[in-house]
Amino acid sequence: MTPCVHKVQYYETDQMQIVHHSNYIRWFEEARSHLMDEIGYGYHRMETDGIIIPVLSVHADYKGMVRYGETVEIEANIKAFTGVKMVISYVVRDILSREVRTVGESKHAFLNKETYRPLSLKRKHKDLFTLFQNLHLEYIDEGDK
Amino acid sequence: MTPCVHKVQYYETDQMQIVHHSNYIRWFEEARSHLMDEIGYGYHRMETDGIIIPVLSVHADYKGMVRYGETVEIEANIKAFTGVKMVISYVVRDILSREVRTVGESKHAFLNKETYRPLSLKRKHKDLFTLFQNLHLEYIDEGDK
Amino acid sequence: MTPCVHKVQYYETDQMQIVHHSNYIRWFEEARSHLMDEIGYGYHRMETDGIIIPVLSVHADYKGMVRYGETVEIEANIKAFTGVKMVISYVVRDILSREVRTVGESKHAFLNKETYRPLSLKRKHKDLFTLFQNLHLEYIDEGDK
Amino acid sequence: MTPCVHKVQYYETDQMQIVHHSNYIRWFEEARSHLMDEIGYGYHRMETDGIIIPVLSVHADYKGMVRYGETVEIEANIKAFTGVKMVISYVVRDILSREVRTVGESKHAFLNKETYRPLSLKRKHKDLFTLFQNLHLEYIDEGDK
Repeated sequence: MTPCVHKVQYYETDQMQIVHHSNYIRWFEEARSHLMDEIGYGYHRMETDGIIIPVLSVHADYKGMVRYGETVEIEANIKAFTGVKMVISYVVRDILSREVRTVGESKHAFLNKETYRPLSLKRKHKDLFTLFQNLHLEYIDEGDK
Repeated sequence: MTPCVHKVQYYETDQMQIVHHSNYIRWFEEARSHLMDEIGYGYHRMETDGIIIPVLSVHADYKGMVRYGETVEIEANIKAFTGVKMVISYVVRDILSREVRTVGESKHAFLNKETYRPLSLKRKHKDLFTLFQNLHLEYIDEGDK
Repeated sequence: MTPCVHKVQYYETDQMQIVHHSNYIRWFEEARSHLMDEIGYGYHRMETDGIIIPVLSVHADYKGMVRYGETVEIEANIKAFTGVKMVISYVVRDILSREVRTVGESKHAFLNKETYRPLSLKRKHKDLFTLFQNLHLEYIDEGDK
Repeated sequence: MTPCVHKVQYYETDQMQIVHHSNYIRWFEEARSHLMDEIGYGYHRMETDGIIIPVLSVHADYKGMVRYGETVEIEANIKAFTGVKMVISYVVRDILSREVRTVGESKHAFLNKETYRPLSLKRKHKDLFTLFQNLHLEYIDEGDK
């Protein structure tokens, strides 16, 4: 899979002359969206299929500042997956130095787009269930190495 | 009518240590939304009634910088109104010095929310037509004084 | 102290027709900024005095959706304070129903604006130290009731 | 020169289920920044050299909607250049259909970063003056074809 690369934009900076901390939350979403494009099941298609994955909680730990002129890589992994809920973890690295700038996590539920009710991927969307489960297993395998 | 007051937020600044220029476009929207609340026909209700007013064009002239710690007042006026299209003009002033910081304009069409087709307020939403026309006439009258 | 009131703006919504989750992180900042204005020591003045309080981490738990047309109140409390670091907690409530929409926390360090080095408020800025400590004690007292 | 490509992000949409109009103003900046990277004189370096180019005015004409799931290409051209002021024009196209979604313009002044006073590139930064002038001439030449 190709990494999610983000070039820092001027409009993302604040008067401390660093990227405003709220933008990392947006970058996490960018990496989520990128991940789904990479597995061939874009978030856009998921919404068309009647599934939404709202964010239940989000967390970010800022390790170092990111500035305009820099480019980062945002890695997203499926840390936990039950078919009903999912935890995604993120690592934001400077693309040149590979230094970690921010790590984070987001929790999600799979909901029916019309009813906003929980949805079991395993029963309703088997293909998507398998895709997420495989991503999750890959992540666990890598951790074991 | 009470003015639309906006306290500058830290997240609105950029590394030039001023409000990022894209935020004024958002403030214009804020003033539009405020104007409609003031006339008792909120934009929210308008969307519920099946009307959307997308922006056809927008223009901003930046006269002076706005910084964190400052508060501005955003005046919105109906500069032109035909029942099918509308031009709104904006003046952003520092609330203390009354100095003009930015002026601007936005052009809008009234569209049917479902079909995205032009909609004649005069025929379909007479009450809203009258509200906008009166605002427009008030603006013209003030200009004549 | 007057509460921090925020009227939801159209530009804060996303295509799920709710406020985009990254905006709550911005509202937390808004409530922080408001809190400091209320105690008579605005964040703006703090930066002028050479102190910055970057965000070390942030967390948000989304309990319910917020939509355009709604207004929220954002409560901020000093949950922990050492003079070097600080934890602020947040509660976002619908202003009418008083229902909790989001809760969260942010961790901060007090840094010297020029050197980016940790700064002891107790030694360098006694007045600010006392202000924050009092806010923290008030919060603890309220919890005891 | 490689074009400036932007993949639409979820956080850029609004509840009309299209990209919020204020984001195009940010995309214009993105294309400006990209253009300067391409000519080997990044905006970041320019600020380091003591030059800032604040936006004096901005204009956008929205021709068609852009949605999540789409990718756009943002073309930026130096429409006018005097060495003291500059006009940049923009065209936002869908990357697949090549249909124009938005066109726009921004006016800029070259200022000394410390004094905020106008700055003559011709006298103070001859190399940068030549770079911009060549870009401007290329644009004019293309129009003549």
